[in-house]
This record gives sequence, C-alpha cells and structure tokens, in this order.
Amino acid sequence: MNKITDKNSYLDSIKNRNLKIYLMGELIKEPLDHPIIRPSIEAMAETYELAVREPELASATSPYTGDKINRFLHIAESNQDLFLQNKMQRKLGQLTGTCFQRCVGMDAFNALHSVTFEIDEKNNTSYHKNFINFLTEMHKYNLVIGGAMTDVKGDRSKLPHEQEDEDVYLRIVKRTEDGVYVKGAKAHQTGCINSHWMVVMPTLRLSDKDKDYAIVGAIPVDAEGITYIYGRQSCDTRSMEPGEYDVGNKYFAGQEAMVIFDNVFIPNKYIFMNGEYDFASMLVERFTTYHRRSYVCKSGVGDVLIGAAATIAEYNGVEEVSHIRDKLVEMNKLNETIYATGIASSLQGSNTKSGNYINDDLLANVCKQHVTKETYEIGRIAQDLAGGLVGSMPSGIDFNEGTMSEDLKKYLKGKKDINSEDRVKILRLIENMTLGRNAVAYLTESLHGAGSPQTQRVQIRRKVDIEEKKEFAKKLSGITERKE
Amino acid sequence: MNKITDKNSYLDSIKNRNLKIYLMGELIKEPLDHPIIRPSIEAMAETYELAVREPELASATSPYTGDKINRFLHIAESNQDLFLQNKMQRKLGQLTGTCFQRCVGMDAFNALHSVTFEIDEKNNTSYHKNFINFLTEMHKYNLVIGGAMTDVKGDRSKLPHEQEDEDVYLRIVKRTEDGVYVKGAKAHQTGCINSHWMVVMPTLRLSDKDKDYAIVGAIPVDAEGITYIYGRQSCDTRSMEPGEYDVGNKYFAGQEAMVIFDNVFIPNKYIFMNGEYDFASMLVERFTTYHRRSYVCKSGVGDVLIGAAATIAEYNGVEEVSHIRDKLVEMNKLNETIYATGIASSLQGSNTKSGNYINDDLLANVCKQHVTKETYEIGRIAQDLAGGLVGSMPSGIDFNEGTMSEDLKKYLKGKKDINSEDRVKILRLIENMTLGRNAVAYLTESLHGAGSPQTQRVQIRRKVDIEEKKEFAKKLSGITERKE
Amino acid sequence: MNKITDKNSYLDSIKNRNLKIYLMGELIKEPLDHPIIRPSIEAMAETYELAVREPELASATSPYTGDKINRFLHIAESNQDLFLQNKMQRKLGQLTGTCFQRCVGMDAFNALHSVTFEIDEKNNTSYHKNFINFLTEMHKYNLVIGGAMTDVKGDRSKLPHEQEDEDVYLRIVKRTEDGVYVKGAKAHQTGCINSHWMVVMPTLRLSDKDKDYAIVGAIPVDAEGITYIYGRQSCDTRSMEPGEYDVGNKYFAGQEAMVIFDNVFIPNKYIFMNGEYDFASMLVERFTTYHRRSYVCKSGVGDVLIGAAATIAEYNGVEEVSHIRDKLVEMNKLNETIYATGIASSLQGSNTKSGNYINDDLLANVCKQHVTKETYEIGRIAQDLAGGLVGSMPSGIDFNEGTMSEDLKKYLKGKKDINSEDRVKILRLIENMTLGRNAVAYLTESLHGAGSPQTQRVQIRRKVDIEEKKEFAKKLSGITERKE
Amino acid sequence: MNKITDKNSYLDSIKNRNLKIYLMGELIKEPLDHPIIRPSIEAMAETYELAVREPELASATSPYTGDKINRFLHIAESNQDLFLQNKMQRKLGQLTGTCFQRCVGMDAFNALHSVTFEIDEKNNTSYHKNFINFLTEMHKYNLVIGGAMTDVKGDRSKLPHEQEDEDVYLRIVKRTEDGVYVKGAKAHQTGCINSHWMVVMPTLRLSDKDKDYAIVGAIPVDAEGITYIYGRQSCDTRSMEPGEYDVGNKYFAGQEAMVIFDNVFIPNKYIFMNGEYDFASMLVERFTTYHRRSYVCKSGVGDVLIGAAATIAEYNGVEEVSHIRDKLVEMNKLNETIYATGIASSLQGSNTKSGNYINDDLLANVCKQHVTKETYEIGRIAQDLAGGLVGSMPSGIDFNEGTMSEDLKKYLKGKKDINSEDRVKILRLIENMTLGRNAVAYLTESLHGAGSPQTQRVQIRRKVDIEEKKEFAKKLSGITERKE
Repeated sequence: MNKITDKNSYLDSIKNRNLKIYLMGELIKEPLDHPIIRPSIEAMAETYELAVREPELASATSPYTGDKINRFLHIAESNQDLFLQNKMQRKLGQLTGTCFQRCVGMDAFNALHSVTFEIDEKNNTSYHKNFINFLTEMHKYNLVIGGAMTDVKGDRSKLPHEQEDEDVYLRIVKRTEDGVYVKGAKAHQTGCINSHWMVVMPTLRLSDKDKDYAIVGAIPVDAEGITYIYGRQSCDTRSMEPGEYDVGNKYFAGQEAMVIFDNVFIPNKYIFMNGEYDFASMLVERFTTYHRRSYVCKSGVGDVLIGAAATIAEYNGVEEVSHIRDKLVEMNKLNETIYATGIASSLQGSNTKSGNYINDDLLANVCKQHVTKETYEIGRIAQDLAGGLVGSMPSGIDFNEGTMSEDLKKYLKGKKDINSEDRVKILRLIENMTLGRNAVAYLTESLHGAGSPQTQRVQIRRKVDIEEKKEFAKKLSGITERKE
Repeated sequence: MNKITDKNSYLDSIKNRNLKIYLMGELIKEPLDHPIIRPSIEAMAETYELAVREPELASATSPYTGDKINRFLHIAESNQDLFLQNKMQRKLGQLTGTCFQRCVGMDAFNALHSVTFEIDEKNNTSYHKNFINFLTEMHKYNLVIGGAMTDVKGDRSKLPHEQEDEDVYLRIVKRTEDGVYVKGAKAHQTGCINSHWMVVMPTLRLSDKDKDYAIVGAIPVDAEGITYIYGRQSCDTRSMEPGEYDVGNKYFAGQEAMVIFDNVFIPNKYIFMNGEYDFASMLVERFTTYHRRSYVCKSGVGDVLIGAAATIAEYNGVEEVSHIRDKLVEMNKLNETIYATGIASSLQGSNTKSGNYINDDLLANVCKQHVTKETYEIGRIAQDLAGGLVGSMPSGIDFNEGTMSEDLKKYLKGKKDINSEDRVKILRLIENMTLGRNAVAYLTESLHGAGSPQTQRVQIRRKVDIEEKKEFAKKLSGITERKE
Repeated sequence: MNKITDKNSYLDSIKNRNLKIYLMGELIKEPLDHPIIRPSIEAMAETYELAVREPELASATSPYTGDKINRFLHIAESNQDLFLQNKMQRKLGQLTGTCFQRCVGMDAFNALHSVTFEIDEKNNTSYHKNFINFLTEMHKYNLVIGGAMTDVKGDRSKLPHEQEDEDVYLRIVKRTEDGVYVKGAKAHQTGCINSHWMVVMPTLRLSDKDKDYAIVGAIPVDAEGITYIYGRQSCDTRSMEPGEYDVGNKYFAGQEAMVIFDNVFIPNKYIFMNGEYDFASMLVERFTTYHRRSYVCKSGVGDVLIGAAATIAEYNGVEEVSHIRDKLVEMNKLNETIYATGIASSLQGSNTKSGNYINDDLLANVCKQHVTKETYEIGRIAQDLAGGLVGSMPSGIDFNEGTMSEDLKKYLKGKKDINSEDRVKILRLIENMTLGRNAVAYLTESLHGAGSPQTQRVQIRRKVDIEEKKEFAKKLSGITERKE
Repeated sequence: MNKITDKNSYLDSIKNRNLKIYLMGELIKEPLDHPIIRPSIEAMAETYELAVREPELASATSPYTGDKINRFLHIAESNQDLFLQNKMQRKLGQLTGTCFQRCVGMDAFNALHSVTFEIDEKNNTSYHKNFINFLTEMHKYNLVIGGAMTDVKGDRSKLPHEQEDEDVYLRIVKRTEDGVYVKGAKAHQTGCINSHWMVVMPTLRLSDKDKDYAIVGAIPVDAEGITYIYGRQSCDTRSMEPGEYDVGNKYFAGQEAMVIFDNVFIPNKYIFMNGEYDFASMLVERFTTYHRRSYVCKSGVGDVLIGAAATIAEYNGVEEVSHIRDKLVEMNKLNETIYATGIASSLQGSNTKSGNYINDDLLANVCKQHVTKETYEIGRIAQDLAGGLVGSMPSGIDFNEGTMSEDLKKYLKGKKDINSEDRVKILRLIENMTLGRNAVAYLTESLHGAGSPQTQRVQIRRKVDIEEKKEFAKKLSGITERKE
C-alpha cells in the first residue's frame, strides 16, 4: 500500500475491498459505485483534498514518521493545534455542507494518547506503546481511522452486565494468547465504511462486573466477522432517481451505519485497554471533551445554510427588507456562538500527562449544548426565508424534463434576472439541510452526536465549581468574612 | 350525484375523474391508486368518517338545506361553532398525524360570507346571493371545497400589475357575457386534488391598477384548462418501496400541488368578486383571521408526536427519568399554548354584518406565531427523546426481510418485553413527523400556511391599540392627568 | 357597619382599626397615613371604583342577598363569570400598573365553595353551610376577604409534622368547645392589611399525621394575636422622600406582609375544615386552578409597560424604526399569550358538585408558566427601549429643584416638543416596573404567586393524558391496530 | 503625587479633591464619606488590591516607564494580553458582584492607540505622540482613567449638527492657540468620580458638518467647569438606613453619573483628535470592539449570583432536587456562554498598524448580544430559586432589632443548622442583584453598556461575509460551478 496523498489515492485505497455492507435489502458490492453511498465518500475525500490545497490548515508533521500527514491524524501538541482542528472543521463544513466523518477517529486517538499512558502508569501495562506503534503505522500511510464507541445499549436503565442480552454492549467473548474475540454491535457509526481502520471503545462508565466490556482495540474495517448495515436517511433514494434533480446537495452526504461484530479478532498488538474497567469513564470523558467541541464543524455547515437563506431572499427580491436582515443576523449570531464557544474551549486547552493537549471540558460541553439547539433554530429560520415552496415544490423531473416544464419555469420565477432553475436549486438545498438527507447531519447528529443533550448538562454540573461560587456570594452578603 | 355520507361515498365521488395531474414526470391516471397520493386521500376521507362516528363534533345542520352536513361546510353561527371547528381540527390532527386539508375551504367561505355581503352593500352587486346559492349546492351533496389563494408571486417586492410576467398572480384574461377566463398559477394548494370544487381568491391587498386580479370564483376541480403538478415531500417515495416499511405513518399524509390555470372559465353565477380591488385586503384579512386560528390542528398533530416521544422513552426504559419527564412537560406546555391561544380567539369571536361569526383577529395572529415556533421545538425535543437511531436506522427491508434481519432485531431491542419491531415503528413515525413526509405538514406548513411569520407580526402591530396603552402609562407616571 | 359602595366608604371602613403592623422597626398607627402603605390601599380601593364606573364588568348580583356586590366577592356561576373575572383583572392591571390584591380571596372562596360541599358529602359535616353563611355576611357589607395560604415552610424537604419547629406551618394548638386556636405564620400575604377578613388555609397536601394543620377558617384581620410585618420592596422608601419625584408610579403599589398568628381564636361558625387532611390537596389544587389563571392581571400590567416602552420610543424619536416596532410586537405577542391562555382556561370551565364553576386546570397551569417567563422578557425589552438612562438618571430633587435643574432639563430632553419632565417621568415608571417597587408585583410575584414555576410543571404532567397520546402514535405507526 | 500602589494609596489619591458633585439635591463635599458613593469607590479600589494579591493577573509592565502598572492601564501587546484582561475582569466580577468601573478607560485608550496612529499617518498630525505622552504620565502614577463617550443625544433620529440644541453632543465652543473649550454633557458615566482623568470621545459616526463634535482629549476630573450629577440606582438609599441591613451586597456598588461640561478647557498636549470627523466612526467601532468583549466581567458577577442561588437552594433544603440542579446547570451554561464568546474574541485578536492588539470584532458583538439576554435569564432563575421571600421580606431593622425580631428569626428559618440570619442575607444579595442596586450593574448596564442590543446586530451584519456564504451554498446546490 502507498501513502495516500489526495482524493484519487484515497479512492484507490478503498476500492475493491471485501466489506460486507447491506443497504435496503441488498449486499453492496462496491460502495464507490453506489449512488447513495458515493456522496459520503466524496465528503471524506474532501478531507484529503483540503490538505492538498491548504496544507497549513489541513496537514501537520507526524512526530513519529517526520512526514506530512493529514491533520485529522495528528496528536494535538498545543492549544494552537486544537484550534486549528476547529478551523479545519469549519472549513470542511463550508465546503461539504454535511458531515465529513473524520472527527471521531481524531478525537478518539487524542483521548487514547493520554488514557493509555495513564493506565500504563498505574498498572505497568504497555498500551501506550501499542497505541503509538499503531498510530505510527497509520501515519505512514496517512489512513482514515474511525472511532466506534456507541453501543446499541438495550435497556437504558441497566449496566452492560445487567442486560438481558449481554451482547447489546460490545464485549470480549473469547480470550486467547494472541488476542481477544469481540461480539456486539455499534450503532450509527459515522463514516465507518469510508475508513481503513476503526478503534472500538466502551461507551460508558463500567463497574467491576463489566470487565469484559472494557476493551479498546484497533481493527481493520474489512476484518472477518464484521457486517455493516447502512442507515437510511431522509430522502436518501433521491440519489437513485433519474437526473438526481432533487438531491439538494449535488456532491456530498454523511454516512451512518450499524456495525455488527460477530467474533471479530483483535490481536494483542492492537489492544489499548483490556479489562481496566475503571479507566472506561476517563476514556469516555476525554473523548467527549474533544468531540463535543469538534461540533464546531456545524458552524461551517451553518454557513452554507445561512448562505442559502440569503440567496433565496435575494432571489425573492426581499434581501434588504428589515425583518429578513434581522433574521440573517440572528442566524449568524447563533452560528458564531457555536464556533466561539468551541474555539474558546480549544484555546483554553491544557497539557496531559502523556504530553498531548486537551481542550477545556466545561466549555466543550457548553459548545455542544448550543449545537443541540441553535442548529434547529437556524434551520427553522432558513425555512422561513425559503417560503412555503421548500415543502411543496414539484419534482425535478417535472420541472426540467416534463410536459409542464416550461410552465413551471414560468411560474417558479422570482426576481427578474434570476433563473427559475437557480431558485429551485437553492430551495432544494434548503430542503436537503432542514428536512432531507443532510438534515440528519445538520440537525439529528448535532443533537445526539458526542452524547445527547442531557449528558452535557451532567458534565457541566460536574465541572463547575459551585462551592467556590457559593463562597463568592457568602462573602459579599456578609455570611462569611471577607478577608481579602 | 348522491350526497356524500361517509368515506366510501367520498372515495366513489372522486373516482374516475378526468384530472390532469403530473407527479415525477408521469401523468397520473387515477390518484386513488397512486401510493404517494393515496395517503392524502385517506386523510381527507377521515373528515367524513369522523362525522359518522362523532356527529356532534364533526357535523352541523345546514341553514340552507336543513340537512346534516359536514362541519367543514358549515358557516359559523356562534362562537361555540368557531370553537367546535377547533375541537374537530385537534381531533383530526390526533387521528391522522398530518394535514387533512379541509380547513382552507371552510375558512375561505366563512370569510366570503361577510365579504360578499359587504361588497353588495356598497356596490349593489349580488355576490352574496351567488355565494349562498353555491354554498347551498355544496351542502346538498356534502362536498369538499378547496380554497385557492396563494399565487406564485414572482418578485416579492412588486405588486401584481408591476410584475414582468403578469401571470404570476392569477388574473382575468378575458371577459364574456357569461363569465370570465382566468390565467395564472396557485402554489402549494392543500388538498386540491382531493376536492370537488375550489374557490380562487386574490392573495394580497390590491391597487386600482390590479382590477383584473380582483377575482373570486368557484371552479370544479376538473374544469378545462387546469393542470396539477404534485409537490414533492421529503421521503414521499418511501410509499413506493416494497413493503412500505419505512413510511412512518402507515395511513396518512398531506397533499400540496401547484395548480396551473390556462384560460379557465368561471360562469357568472360562480363569481363572488369581480374587479372590486378595494375589497381584496378585507377578504385576505378575514380569511387569515379564520385560518391562522385553524392551525390549532397542529396541537392535535403535536399530541401524536408527544405520544410518540413518550412511547420511545418508555421503550428505552427511561420514561420516569426526571429530565425526560420535564421534556414531556415542555412539549405539552408548548402544544397547549397553540391550542389555548387558538380557542381563545374563537371563543372571543364576534358577529359580522352578514350574520356569521368571526374569531378574534389579534389572538388568531398570536396563535399562529406560536404555531410557527413551538412545533419546531416540539419536533426537536421528540428527536432528543428518540435518540440517534431516528437518523441512522437501517431500512425496513433489512430489518424485516433481509439476511441480517435476526441480528437487527436482536440489536435494536430496547427494554425487555418490548418488540424491536415496535421500537422501530415508533422511531419511523418520529422521523416521519420531524424529517420525513409529515414534517412538511407539521413544520413547514406550520411556518408558512396562512401566511409566513412576519405577516402575523404586521397584523399584531395593527390590531393592538398602542395609543391606549401609552395612555395607561402616561396616567400612572403622571404625564397626563388621571381623572378616574 | 354600612355596606361599602365606593372608594370613600372603603377607606372609611379600614380607618381607625387596631392592627398591629410593623414596618422598618416602627409600629404603624394608621396605615392609611403611611406613605409606603397608602399606594397599596389606593390599588385596592380601585377595585371598588371600577365597580362604580363599570358595574357590568366589576360587579355582580349576590345569590345570597340579591344585592349588587363587587365581582371579587362573587361565586362563579358560569364560564362567562370566570371570563369576566379575567377581563376585570386585566382592566385593573391597566389602571393600577401593579397588584390590586383582591384575587386571592376571590379564588379562595370559589375553591372553598365546592371543597366544603364535598367534605360534607363525604363526612356529613356542615362546613358548606358555615361557608355560605360567612359569605352572605361578606356580601351584605361588600367586604374585602384575603386568602392566607402560604406558610413559611421551614425545611422544604419535610412535611409539616416532620419539621423541627412545628409552627412553621399554621396549626391548631388548642381546641375548645367554641372553636380552635391557631399558631404559625403566613408569608408574603398580599393585601392582608387592606382586607377586612382573611381565610386561612393549608398550603400543601397533608398526611394523616398532619391533622392539626388541616384547618380552614375565617378571621377578622384585627383579631387578637395577629401581627403584621410589612415586607420591603425595592425602592419602597422613595415614597418617603421629599417631593416623591422618583416613585415612578404616582398612585399605586402592591402589598406583601408576613402575618404571625399567636394563638388566634377561630369560632366554630367560621371554620370550614378541621382535621380533614385528605381534602387539603383538593383545596390547594382547586385554589391554584383558579388562581393561576387569575394571573392574567399581569397582561393588564403588561399593557402599561408596553405603553411606557412605546412612549419612551416616541419621546426618543425612534418609534417608527423597524427594530423598535418589532420589539413592541414581541412584547404584545408575549402579553397576549398570557391573556389568551388564561381566558381559554376560564372559557373551558366546568361545573362542580356544589354548583359553581371552575376553569380548566391544564390551561390554567400553562397560563401561569407563561406568566413566570414572559413578564421578565417584556421587562427586559422595556429596558431596552428605555435606554441606559433607566438605570442612571439623576434624582428627581436634582432634576426638579436643585441647582442643576435647568441644566438637567436641557440635557435630558429627547425629541422636540416633548418636555424633559415627561421623559423623566416615563423612565421612572419603567424603572418602577422593572427594577423598582412594582417590579416585585410584575416580576417576582408573577414568578412565585400561585406557586413557583415547578409546581405548574408537576400539574401539567398530571393533567395531560399521556397514555391517550401514546395510543394515537401507536395507531399511526402500526404498533396497535387502528379500527376507526 | 506618589505612584498609587494599593487600595490605601488610591483612597489617599482621591481624598480632598474639589469635585462638584450633586446627589439628591445635595452638594457632596467628600464622596469618600458618603454612604451611597463609598461602595463604588471600594469596587474601584479592589482593582488595585487585586494587583497586589495577584500581580501576574492584574498588573503588567509599562513599555513607557518600564515599571509595573495596573493591567487596566496596559496597552495590549498580544492576544494573551487581551485574554488576561478578560480573566481579570471575571475575577473582579466575582470579588465585587458589581461594576468595578475601570474597563471603559482601558478600552478607550487601547482604541486610541491605533486610531491616533492612523490619523497621524493620514494627516501628518501628532496625536499619537500626545497620546503616548499622556499615557506615560498615567503609567508613572498608576492612575485611573475614565472614558467619556455617551452623549445625551437629544432626538435620536438626528445627527449632532441637526439637533435643535447643539449642546446635546459634546462639542468645541471655542478654540484658542493653547487648546479648546468644550461644552455638553455625557450621560451615565461609569466611575467618573472615582477616576483621576477622563478622556472625552465622540459617540457616533460624524459627518463633515459635525467637525466641532470630533474632539478627543484628556481632562482631569476636577477641571474647572465640570459638574457631576450622581445617578440614582434602585434601592440606593438603603445604604443610608440605620444598620444598613438591607443593602444586599455589604461592600460594593457601581457608579453612574451625568457629567456636565460648561466651557471646559483642554490644552493642546492633551488633544488626540480635533476635527477629524471621518475618524470618529473608526474610533467608536474600535472602542466598542474592545468594550463589548469586556462585558465578560458579567460572567464573574454571574458567578456570584449563581453561587447565591445555589446557597439559597441549600438553605431551603432542596439543592439536590432535580429541577433545581437543572436550573443551576442552565445558569452556568448561560454564564459560560458569555465568558466563552468573550475570550474567543480576545484569543482571535490581531495586530493593528500602531502595534497593539485588538480582539475579533464579530465575536465581540456576539458576546455582547449574549450579555444583553442571558444575564436577565440568569437573574430570573435566581429569583426562582430564591422563592417569593426575595420580594416580600421584612426589613432588616424588624428582623434584627425590632420587637418581632425573635418571631421573625423563628419563622424565617429554613433547613436545620442554617441561621435565619444567613438565609436573610443571601436573599438580600439576590434582591440586590436582580431588583436592587447591583441589578443596575448586572442587568441594565449589561443591556446598554457598550451599545444597546441593536447596535451589535448592525455590527454583526457588517462583519459577516454574507457573499462568501452565498457562494458556499451556490456551489453545493449546483448554481455555480464547484472547481475545487
């Protein structure tokens, strides 16, 4: 295998693999050729292309190989590195208008860097070395790593070992001298099919009865025993319609699949945690700290939607109307709030024991809270500016090819000098991002990715020093003495 | 033709008509047989069935024929009548989970009742008689009337006569002794194909140069010169997939189409306004007063979504968790706000000159403002409770029939004693209502139906007596003398 | 004693009483003469004056005496009566810009009407007769009755009988043949000093160990053993400053006091519950049902604040600026939401066993939820329109009398033709309602009166039929069979 | 004069000055001795004390004198400097619970640093040198500089030269060889009386007819012709009551005064702009860029209010109740949003032509938008947790000294082991911050300081590159070609 350097070498690298993927009842031979899957591959590919066009932004130097690698593979060595991740994420959001699927891996191994180090420190294990070796290999070929965390979970009120079906959390079902065999399923795995490797990780705090669930390891995506069932997204089959007129976003989409592990083997050298249940919560917490702030990517996607809203306002001839202007300001205010809270978290990062950097936890959770709400409000305002057509427009076939095509072009015209075709296109993009395929990436994923809203609130509660704040108040009210 | 009395006679009444309908490039011979169209017909049919099951709620006595008619055909004779419209609308929202398409007509002819009377009063015309005759005919057969108001509008910054293409607002293109010929197009016409007649009306305040646009008249939906182009809705083609597993709502959907009028004739007896441009704004205002409050139907649809959210919470085993409970309370609070402001408007109605009742204008606009926002927030919370699966679930074919069916049932199981099948079904319903086909009815239509949000704000501004409020303040602050 | 018919006879009726009132360390001889107390008396008096000016709105006919009485003394005999309470409350809010203190009593005895009836029905007691006799007496003289519910509560996590100090809930400390003696304290009693009688009631659901706390009875406000400690309100002492320039509202204010009961006697004929602990929650719930909807008074107060905001915008020369107009629309939308949800509750009332009417519980709680939030947002917008001066304006003495008076008038002038004096006055009113004395009535009381926000959420949860909603969803998703 | 090094030397430095200050009709001889003014001086003094205790945080090295100076006097030489301003501001908010009044000056001369440089660059003037000399002098003695920008403005719809009274914007009324004489008034000047010097600046974009208004210069606060009229604040006179029991914040308050300039002389060496009207908007914009982000101080004040809310919840025995916990999370989320958006702006600063650093404009405006809203919501939630007593509590005299003192202590007790005294104190602090004196600093000033809400929206509109965003959307929708 050669090092991947751009879109083309990336596409080559994932061609002709032997993945077992099901989509709408069908076993997919070559995902690259499937109209529903292809746009998600294009989005991933864009992470390589950006590194070609803007190397300062989207690449970095590997401390292990000394070579240029994609920034998504880089271990953050400073707050500036953390910030540059955000800047790159926003840029890719602007370029693709969807989820480009590569953050989970980046955030996972940034978390693993320090966690493996701290497990070793306590237990005299050698996970950190394993991990660095693995990462060096990845760097060498500039690969895509997916992070597989979210189990299917069964009854949410029970711990893994309490579940009726023990497999609803991924677990070790056999141990040999050479490694372990795992079984279970990971839900809504972003970009898994577009990756080369994936790292499995536990998804929640574990008890001492959950040791078999305390497994972290790297697996090639085409390992034996893995099956992918492609997730449906709203309007996904529009990519299969003749003309593809109604897709909205002509190029890109996200990807979510369920991954089923049926006795998949992980050799020892790719194992980074094995039974250390008491480190599961540290891993989850560090991962989510990185990952909740990674959702600043949605401010980039938001830029696209704001741009679409401004465009349709222009096409309708109302761009300068005061309430329209104010709505665009509101969209921007919300969008920049996401970005600002995210980069504040990155720029307030700190050093870990293992030497890499981690962003501020409290602010990462604040950022993610905004992501779970403001995106929906931005989407609502975009639909407001779009007008009712966004939900009632004739099909692209009727508009472009059908008997009534000329009539539709006549009657769907907005402002003079604007083609009806363009008006229809921008409306389809707004539909795509608020109701259609990329609404899943822009809205639903914003809600649940990196943890549903309540998980952030729990974390905010933990990270705030409420006793210190009480003391401020007690001093000023005279309850306690104010010495200073 | 026989009087329609229930679902079956309704279906019979619309069978074998000669409508010219295009959908995705195809000319549709029989809409009843089309999987995409059929669910919208079912929703309309439910308005007849409810009248059979609950006649007190959904029927009334015609003052013209003395017979029982569907309440949707009734002229409101009291505030109680206005309120019963709302109660029926909520009920139908609960039963269908979507738009049942029959309110526009009801609100249109309730507005026309008084407006035709007042035109006659001023101009000595006989529109009101025409209108009553027409309505009597409708009552006789218990038909469905659609209201066709929204023009395609072209450049939103210009009046009809100022448009480059004069046809972007429906207008009279020829006048004969027997009637008029109209040309133009009406956008997103709710339920038009499922109606028997439609009433065309101007969509905005007109100037004296817009006389040709001041036309109100009744037209059979299969009149010569009319073409329907069916509007796409998110995920509409899922109804055409084998098994129809992923439709979400098994029975019902809304319907929006663009209607193109190419020299369609309206005979004199069906004309209710012809050139009286100065009454256009009165008509629009009265119609929207009725119609903005009719959006309490969305509180019924909201009941379904709240129920779905509570169900998935139960299936996930978290129904009693405090933040889940609080989110359900929030959904209900928002939903009841829509209902309460709507019925307050109805219960504060007043008598018109022609003798029918009209609800309170200010409160109708307040109600509609809530409809444009709270529905989206209810939708967001529903997705929150649903969990990430709502955006990433495998297709129904994979789940129910495919090779991996057993695995998927295993891994998509929630709480013990709950079938995975049921869990998947309720998730698909939530998807349907927040991202899919009925999200158009529940969200986009809530935003734009009966006028986009800003139109309500304009109306609130007009209807509030701000000078009276200033005077209250001036008295208490001592600026003006307080005598009483 | 003569029947009270207007402001003057009311003032006479409360003159020269022997109340024990403390305010800022002082024992107040005659509250009528105290500058801090007087404005609250004026607000109460306005309830009598309105009945003189608008008898249809503010009076009713007593079913017991057959005479005209103030509507605040009336038992609701129809939904229209419930609605007229709201209409009168809004009007009084507009007239006074504060709390006129008379709703608690009205709501209390409307609740007692049915609760006493139902206790008797179950226990063969004669509380209802006692109650009707008492009410007849009140009607005869057209008196003010205060309702005293909120105990001081001690540790909120404990029931009355579990408290360390048993007196933190009002309780019976001695029983004799003639009646009972009570001890305890009621917090923030609205208008108590301006009343003639008060009715004490338990404040929460009681257990069988709390029987001594299950006491309801009527007491003259000047009964032996009662002490009032007047509550401070923000800026209250401005009424004592020379010139009273900075009071904001020239005439009116609310009144809250703590009432301490030290072995106060209640004779048997004035007792309406005595030990029936299992009816305490029914009483609390019915009272809050009435009372939460009574907070539509705040939409009247809101009218004043909206008027003040519009006035200052006019004085600053910016009334027609688009963002100012939009903010006024927003204030009105929020304000009318309070009103609409409240009257919807009243107009959806129902008959009780005892024959009077009670408004809809669910909607009353929805209304109160809005009261707890929208008032604050209206207040914020009012400060926005006011400009920074609302927080930094020189004192009225400096402005009106001081050395710099001329300079201040010069520099505090807004638009031409507007006196600086008027501009200052309207700013002081806005300060009064958002930071000052009546901010307590408009904001804090809106938050906590009739139960703090969470109590409404609990009640919304109880009153919503969530199982019915689940069933709607289950039918449409295909989980359960849809028969109808 | 000696260099100021701490609180005491600061207090000495402002003692025995000859300021002409009016407060409630009185000429104040010595502000240090006035109970209403003293707390504002204490807050200012705290900026010196913090520099003693935490020199790294609150001091810096002057590039002009080479000595340690207070950070408030420092010109930002890096993004880190900008960030440290924020960190210090939050700390001081936590320590004082109010406005410490020293940011305006800091932000003013940071703006002047680059603006004077750029005027000189264009016009060959020597303002920058004047400015540096002035600053060097300030550094030498470590003084307090106030920034005086906001004019009284008269009719807001008119420019300065269009006003009926030309003095409503500060202007040059006489020019001599040695300098200029100015006349006019500046409204709500924060901390002016506690300063040593003030810098006057124009408050808005000027036209070529407004040259006399284009004046920037430094003036000692005790210059001849200056009069201060102290602004009232809610509850200010509580500091004058015996015992001062009800002040809420025992130590600190803000300060706002109107400053009237009656022919005040500014010598040439202290003039930094004189007629260059075309640079007025640059100055205003840069100042507000710095200053809008300086409002992160309110997150420090918010910490106090959150602490107070958590304390009262604890005292009431409900700290662990789920809805209480969630409300505390919400307060923190809102509070950290202010902080995060502010520091993001600072950490994204950039270099100016003159060599100092300026924070990001767009994010500064986003930060300030949050300050104008979230503070009010935090305040509302604090009142929610406080309970109704926050608006109805007896006076401190009654509670502590009066006849009923023992009863009140008994009945105002919350949880066991908590003194009633402490409970009362914390409630008074919450009242202070939401309705009382420091509500002006925490709420009203948050709304209007550094520009009212709409000014930020205008600026957000200007700073966002909407055309770039449109282009993103046009590419993805296929309207324009996507090359990259």
